[in-house]
Amino acid sequence: MNTSNKIDSFALAIQGGAGTILKSKMTPEKEQAYRNALVESLSVGYDVLASGGTALDAAQKAVNVMEDSPLFNAGKGAVFTHDGHHEQDACIMDGATRNVGAVAMLHRIKNPIDLARLVMEKSSHIFLAGEGAEEFARAHGIDFADDEYFHTEFRWKQLQEALAKERAIVSEHTRLDHSVEDKTGTVGAVALDRHGNLAAATSTGGMTNKRAGRIGDTPMIGAGTYADNATCAVSATGVGEFIMRALVAYDIVALMMYKNMTLADAADEVVMKKLTALGGSGGAIAIDRFGTIAMPFNSEGMYRGYRLPDGEPFVRIFKD
Amino acid sequence: MNTSNKIDSFALAIQGGAGTILKSKMTPEKEQAYRNALVESLSVGYDVLASGGTALDAAQKAVNVMEDSPLFNAGKGAVFTHDGHHEQDACIMDGATRNVGAVAMLHRIKNPIDLARLVMEKSSHIFLAGEGAEEFARAHGIDFADDEYFHTEFRWKQLQEALAKERAIVSEHTRLDHSVEDKTGTVGAVALDRHGNLAAATSTGGMTNKRAGRIGDTPMIGAGTYADNATCAVSATGVGEFIMRALVAYDIVALMMYKNMTLADAADEVVMKKLTALGGSGGAIAIDRFGTIAMPFNSEGMYRGYRLPDGEPFVRIFKD
Repeated sequence: MNTSNKIDSFALAIQGGAGTILKSKMTPEKEQAYRNALVESLSVGYDVLASGGTALDAAQKAVNVMEDSPLFNAGKGAVFTHDGHHEQDACIMDGATRNVGAVAMLHRIKNPIDLARLVMEKSSHIFLAGEGAEEFARAHGIDFADDEYFHTEFRWKQLQEALAKERAIVSEHTRLDHSVEDKTGTVGAVALDRHGNLAAATSTGGMTNKRAGRIGDTPMIGAGTYADNATCAVSATGVGEFIMRALVAYDIVALMMYKNMTLADAADEVVMKKLTALGGSGGAIAIDRFGTIAMPFNSEGMYRGYRLPDGEPFVRIFKD
Repeated sequence: MNTSNKIDSFALAIQGGAGTILKSKMTPEKEQAYRNALVESLSVGYDVLASGGTALDAAQKAVNVMEDSPLFNAGKGAVFTHDGHHEQDACIMDGATRNVGAVAMLHRIKNPIDLARLVMEKSSHIFLAGEGAEEFARAHGIDFADDEYFHTEFRWKQLQEALAKERAIVSEHTRLDHSVEDKTGTVGAVALDRHGNLAAATSTGGMTNKRAGRIGDTPMIGAGTYADNATCAVSATGVGEFIMRALVAYDIVALMMYKNMTLADAADEVVMKKLTALGGSGGAIAIDRFGTIAMPFNSEGMYRGYRLPDGEPFVRIFKD
């Protein structure tokens, strides 16, 4: 499946999470801050690709920019768990070899996507979680950060609101809070490089108020992240429980591979039809080996953007 | 996708792991013990189905029998991690609803598949790992077991051998032990019930000498386990790192769904061709909504069996 098409082109798409993102609740300042961060992420990834770098490096570095921003639910801006901690997941995949690295339940890793890359390249395993993953990180000199670094006032308030809502409606044995308003989010990037290789990278803090040990779709290979040069690279976002059951990323790949669908048709079929039918809210960014980009989502909004060799960065937040 | 075909039939297939299972290394006593355990597992699952029970219950209870046996790498017979502990993973999926429960990194749960079922039915999350999963288990009265219960001499020796081999060949920064001889294994069951519903269940101790925090294919929805009434239910086994990259379970589903392949052709294509081409060793058991069963594997052997309404239990270990 390792087809390689030597086109001297490249392209990059990014997402900063899908969900209930309403224009009515967005101030001009906040909107501008998001747009600036997305443009910065695209710019960093673009520079890697323009100078002949790899899709893997471009996707990873584009994700790093969003991980380092307090605006997105990954890295610095990661949401709080039920217990007031952070548990981050990430995954990166190389479309040329289908090598992959996934990490989950990270408490103190500054840039989870960097650890996913390291797992892909230096571990005989491809999925490491929890303390074992952090031990591996320490042995390889990955940057750690303390609780203070990950404390953002906005996310802390989100947790307090979720906890208050939960207390109000929870009976003794069941939790009924299935609302997902603003609780989820990821960051992700997909890239095609000048060598004809694809890559996908996704990083997330998960879900506000999630229970300790909850793993979402991001590190689930084929759910939140997948890349294969023969078809496309995908990074999905939204409510993980549905994205996992629908295998969103691999299902787009499968429709292209087995039904010869175009990227646009396959992404549309999976996100707008199948995920919607299952009751799942979210979206995905995808890129094929010709540099075609698809960015479908069935939620109110999705932070997203792309940049092609000859163009200005394209950035959008709402349905528009 | 929730098609339901009201055929008054049922069927069950099980697997107890694929790998380097050589007839030359098997004593008649050991072989008989494995056959007896497989027959017992089939018998328990069969009784559930024959009396009109659900595919979910049949798959779960067939897996329980193998988890309770010291012979298989799951539950009591789980392999040791590098640190001399146990970290078990499991997953169960309902083909009627595509509801699913997955658990990973369990240290002390007697029957991991029971906890997976509980996560499916009682948690708003579908994948819980580590201490968070055990906390959830405790709150719901799941049975725990101590280290002594999980200590089997055979598995302890396997770890010592793996560690000795590793010490002999490891340089300071890299581990070179990629051999998989006898180190892996799972147990799994797939079932069709009289109501026309499918289910899949898989449980495993993972890989001898695995690093703390390593998660394999078993709890990765679509890799080691998947079920959809519209197509089939699958439980895969073998070297997880390859099964995850190939999305073995969901790829069989996708070939049936998108290329109208039969179960036998789809399972063969994925396990014998695609997994083999990727360099992965393993196998899968699969059942479709007509009760057709496929059990392909590309390794030396796979503990496996099935039972149909009118037949005796069929049990095999080697290629034959």
